[in-house]
Amino acid sequence: MTSTEPRTAHHRAGIVPAAPRTGRLRPLGLDEVRITGGFWAERQSVNHRHTLAHIGRWLERAGWSRNFDLAAAGSLPADRRGREFSDSEIYKYLEALAWEIGRTGDGELEATFRDLVGRVERAQEPDGYLNTNFGRPGQAPRWSDLEWGHELYCLGHLCQAAVARARTRPDADDGLLAVARRAADLVCEVFGPKGVQSVCGHAEIEVGLAELARVTGEQRYLRQAQLFVARRGTGTLRPIEWGPQYFQDDAPVRQATVLRGHAVRANYLAAGAVDVAVDTGDEDLLSALVTQWDNTVARRTYITGGQGSHHQDEAFGEDWVLPPDRAYSETCAGIASIMFSWRLLLARGDTRYGDLIERTLYNVVATSPSASGTAFYYANTLHQRTPGSVPDPDTASLRAESSLRAPWFGVSCCPPNVARTFASLDALVATADTQGVQIHQFADCRIQTRLDNGELVALDVQTDYPRRGSVRLTPTRDAADPWTLSVRVPHWADGARLVVTRAAGEVSTTHAAPGWASVRHAFRTGDVVELVLPMRPRLTHPDPRIDAVRGCVAVERGPEVYCLESVDLDAVSHGAVTDVADVRIDDTAPVEDHDGRPLACLVVTAAGPPDDLAWPYAERSLEPAPSTSFDVPLIPYHDWAERGPSTMRVWLPVAGRSHVDHGTTGEQRSEQKGNAIR
Amino acid sequence: MTSTEPRTAHHRAGIVPAAPRTGRLRPLGLDEVRITGGFWAERQSVNHRHTLAHIGRWLERAGWSRNFDLAAAGSLPADRRGREFSDSEIYKYLEALAWEIGRTGDGELEATFRDLVGRVERAQEPDGYLNTNFGRPGQAPRWSDLEWGHELYCLGHLCQAAVARARTRPDADDGLLAVARRAADLVCEVFGPKGVQSVCGHAEIEVGLAELARVTGEQRYLRQAQLFVARRGTGTLRPIEWGPQYFQDDAPVRQATVLRGHAVRANYLAAGAVDVAVDTGDEDLLSALVTQWDNTVARRTYITGGQGSHHQDEAFGEDWVLPPDRAYSETCAGIASIMFSWRLLLARGDTRYGDLIERTLYNVVATSPSASGTAFYYANTLHQRTPGSVPDPDTASLRAESSLRAPWFGVSCCPPNVARTFASLDALVATADTQGVQIHQFADCRIQTRLDNGELVALDVQTDYPRRGSVRLTPTRDAADPWTLSVRVPHWADGARLVVTRAAGEVSTTHAAPGWASVRHAFRTGDVVELVLPMRPRLTHPDPRIDAVRGCVAVERGPEVYCLESVDLDAVSHGAVTDVADVRIDDTAPVEDHDGRPLACLVVTAAGPPDDLAWPYAERSLEPAPSTSFDVPLIPYHDWAERGPSTMRVWLPVAGRSHVDHGTTGEQRSEQKGNAIR
Repeated sequence: MTSTEPRTAHHRAGIVPAAPRTGRLRPLGLDEVRITGGFWAERQSVNHRHTLAHIGRWLERAGWSRNFDLAAAGSLPADRRGREFSDSEIYKYLEALAWEIGRTGDGELEATFRDLVGRVERAQEPDGYLNTNFGRPGQAPRWSDLEWGHELYCLGHLCQAAVARARTRPDADDGLLAVARRAADLVCEVFGPKGVQSVCGHAEIEVGLAELARVTGEQRYLRQAQLFVARRGTGTLRPIEWGPQYFQDDAPVRQATVLRGHAVRANYLAAGAVDVAVDTGDEDLLSALVTQWDNTVARRTYITGGQGSHHQDEAFGEDWVLPPDRAYSETCAGIASIMFSWRLLLARGDTRYGDLIERTLYNVVATSPSASGTAFYYANTLHQRTPGSVPDPDTASLRAESSLRAPWFGVSCCPPNVARTFASLDALVATADTQGVQIHQFADCRIQTRLDNGELVALDVQTDYPRRGSVRLTPTRDAADPWTLSVRVPHWADGARLVVTRAAGEVSTTHAAPGWASVRHAFRTGDVVELVLPMRPRLTHPDPRIDAVRGCVAVERGPEVYCLESVDLDAVSHGAVTDVADVRIDDTAPVEDHDGRPLACLVVTAAGPPDDLAWPYAERSLEPAPSTSFDVPLIPYHDWAERGPSTMRVWLPVAGRSHVDHGTTGEQRSEQKGNAIR
Repeated sequence: MTSTEPRTAHHRAGIVPAAPRTGRLRPLGLDEVRITGGFWAERQSVNHRHTLAHIGRWLERAGWSRNFDLAAAGSLPADRRGREFSDSEIYKYLEALAWEIGRTGDGELEATFRDLVGRVERAQEPDGYLNTNFGRPGQAPRWSDLEWGHELYCLGHLCQAAVARARTRPDADDGLLAVARRAADLVCEVFGPKGVQSVCGHAEIEVGLAELARVTGEQRYLRQAQLFVARRGTGTLRPIEWGPQYFQDDAPVRQATVLRGHAVRANYLAAGAVDVAVDTGDEDLLSALVTQWDNTVARRTYITGGQGSHHQDEAFGEDWVLPPDRAYSETCAGIASIMFSWRLLLARGDTRYGDLIERTLYNVVATSPSASGTAFYYANTLHQRTPGSVPDPDTASLRAESSLRAPWFGVSCCPPNVARTFASLDALVATADTQGVQIHQFADCRIQTRLDNGELVALDVQTDYPRRGSVRLTPTRDAADPWTLSVRVPHWADGARLVVTRAAGEVSTTHAAPGWASVRHAFRTGDVVELVLPMRPRLTHPDPRIDAVRGCVAVERGPEVYCLESVDLDAVSHGAVTDVADVRIDDTAPVEDHDGRPLACLVVTAAGPPDDLAWPYAERSLEPAPSTSFDVPLIPYHDWAERGPSTMRVWLPVAGRSHVDHGTTGEQRSEQKGNAIR
């Protein structure tokens, strides 16, 4: 990344989920970056081995796949199953399969994919209409409920699935792209310049049409996406209980200053609007979206990267409304936020977009699925007050807010959304520009791409991140000309170093400030560029305007947010303390790193105030006296709730100054520490 | 209240909303207590002059009254308007009218009442069925949707209206009681021991049937109420998204330990269950309800007395989940809580029930209506972050969470609920037992009742409460025998005194601890019993388990919770500080009482942390430095939002110890004070 490079460049499309025509950075696709090991490879493996089949089974079991068969057989609507948007889960599943087939060449998945595409294709009407919930005798008419019907939303996901397939298997004859084109042609006809002057209550068609235009070269799709973006916010949707901001119909996209309303809708819309902006050269629109991202990240985003704090309408709260208990932080909103951030990263090249993507990947997306890949969080609370109960693995959860991960939901958008994200994750790792290659996410991987000047560059990345902070980048080809290797230094990484070792043996170490760290060189095999990130645990304070976590701190280490889970408290205290409500953190004691796990000094208080009040408000302070202290290991937030019902906190109340002397002495502390972590 | 009195006594029913057959205390009705002036008389007057007519107009305008005409004419369901429970608003309105006619004898209201009763009566089916939303061709069958249909709920309100009328106008020939009896007979038939073994998704029929039994002497109604209470919690309702606890179907009433789920449903059910318990002598059931009240008050109640913290399902949160911003604290839940508390007060005689009633009346019920009586809060937030906008007085609000009071709602339960509460408020002021009279609420009033021993006792109450703390009780008849005058000393009133002045001139002053203060005497005209309550402002700390208000205090004075409204901040600072987000309270400075208004020393901070962060979490503390301090008048919470859009806080963050020295000096402070309050 040098300042002499052109502001935007024109790209050829790769095997990527988003292929903007212009932008500072060119995404590298599955043929150019391949994750080979480590944290994300493990998630991808579980996704491949367990999650995809789990989703397929539940789609059948819930009857959502069968809706397409019924539609083809003409026996809808009496037997239709699922909510009005259930078609979209089939399309997200198809998209996940397409990426996974592209990544692995799995023949069994290919057969599954082709079978399901056939069922979808047979349900399509002759004029291209495709939705199992509308338009047949006994169903509501097509497009009669734009507010809640989700027809265009579903078709947006259909387009994304078709695009994934077209990019990963451009020569496949499965027909999905043709299905999507027929549907998109109908959409352009019905909602075109002279058609219905409105939008879908749930944005998504915008990003789908923009990508379909990129894959097919059909400009009409891009213009239709542009129309949908331009119409949004002009009040074309009917009033609903939660107001027009729920579906971003309160203000035009180019005038809005922050994301608001339903968090998934808001981010999908923003992502689609970036697509429109960069492909039409609309700098004003792009600037508005950058401003929206800035304000949303500064004032409406959880420490995990999660977005959306309302349960009621799955929506953003006002600025600073970020309660940890009942944090909604919907998994799909995290994924949608990554889609938005990634598009701005490609357009603008700033590392802060990669920062938020990393934070959201580790602390929202990785949190949703269980280690087994067969249960999910729909919402991701930051404070679990009661242990809850284990959901039945054979029952779909009616509620988004189960205390432990559930196998499936009445609204089950998150499992296939997680699956498509993991299956295409390689494409978020690195980009190229005219000068060289940029590393955004740290994972063991192999990268190879041809720069615009024709130079073929290749490198391997080796790291044990996020367990350890070393990221080694080793070019695997001798370059004829210099090129620039850039690596994102995360915003939290004060004190990072870049150690460059030449094949000849020369070593140079430089301070790497947050932002881009770059080395320009005619790299040769044997050169090593090592980014060394400081992985000490950090105590993190919230902005005081976030009232809900006043007087608390969180512990972070590298990109991971940590939490206190009652299981660990119970173990360390030998059963004496079983609830996270009963402790405070001593923020005067350093949080130590024991083999990659932060160990916090927690002050244990009595279970409640001195006497358990009949009325919980009093003229005197009710802060209970501390009784003792323990060193307690914290765990990465994404790993919580894997050991049965528990209570959990991300934000830990700070012990009052008068309390921290009452605990064990430093000497006792280090003795206990030995016990605590074995 | 002496310890020798019998545990329960049998009562004759008065002109009261709830007339238990047994209990420690006998309620005094509208013929025995009459509020004559002061805080509540003013609300009753506004209710009489403005609110009742406002409700009547909106019921017509919304088409909810007309539904009954359509039903009578056979032209439902095509033209039916309103939600499935809209009939209940007509019944609550009728109940309010009945009480107000009973209180005032207003002939115009009487005509309105009779007209509306006629319209209701004509809509009743020959077999007694009465609901405009079910049972006709084109409508769902009767009782086909017990979860959401609200048929029994509506009939519960019908019974309460009929009971109010029967007690206030026992000889009226309007027919409402007959309508209610026919409907109740049908309910007993359909849902009796051999009938449908289920309950209504919204409790209310229980309290309605129990009262109808009391008025009519028909024991079948009581037995049916008993059946409904016994069936609740046995899982007879179908699963819904929010789980069975939403409608208290998760645990039998006699096994539950705390109120949970939808807060209005929970409290109506509890009130009806108390009615059943006391009229059937079911001490176990009563004990369970006492426990539920105890735990709900200790762990799930806002400082205002408000209950229910979830917007999504209008429900109680888990223990300690009491966020001030987006506090739901539904007006109707406050009213329902008063109904529950009042019944326990009559049964058990403890002052803590009166304490909660008082708190809820001043800080929830009085908060809902505007000073004009024509706009309402449905939900009562304790923290308003953005000024919002003024609702159109001609438009029903779709949303419960408007930032300013709205004239009407799509779900408009609160206006008629407030109206019926104010119209029958006299009945919450005082009770009698075998020994004498108990004063529960402090208002200018006249009381006269005949004790069980035949003694006619009478007294006047004069007070400027809650502005001032003196409550003067003056017997207005010379008694032949001694009787006991008891007065509730609120739980917050440490330092209260009871000053007894005999007609002969003798004066005695005693300390009156929270609880009952009693004087037994053969009172004579000229005797004065004066309760002197300490009205200094109090700084109130929350239980630390209420995480959402950690590091904050509230200001209370007497029974009123105070708040900081930005209008006052703006005025005192001459426009320099306009948002309640920018101040902290100096809790080391006394909150002074200036002419009945607390004046708090607020430390003003910069608008945000030192630099406005791109990411609102950091390794250093982000608490902004203070710039200055002001003395700012606080206002009673119930008066907020009467001066246009504003921001508001009940819970004020405490300034850090290092900050409180930076402000103005004490001398400057008292100078500013002069400016501040003029």
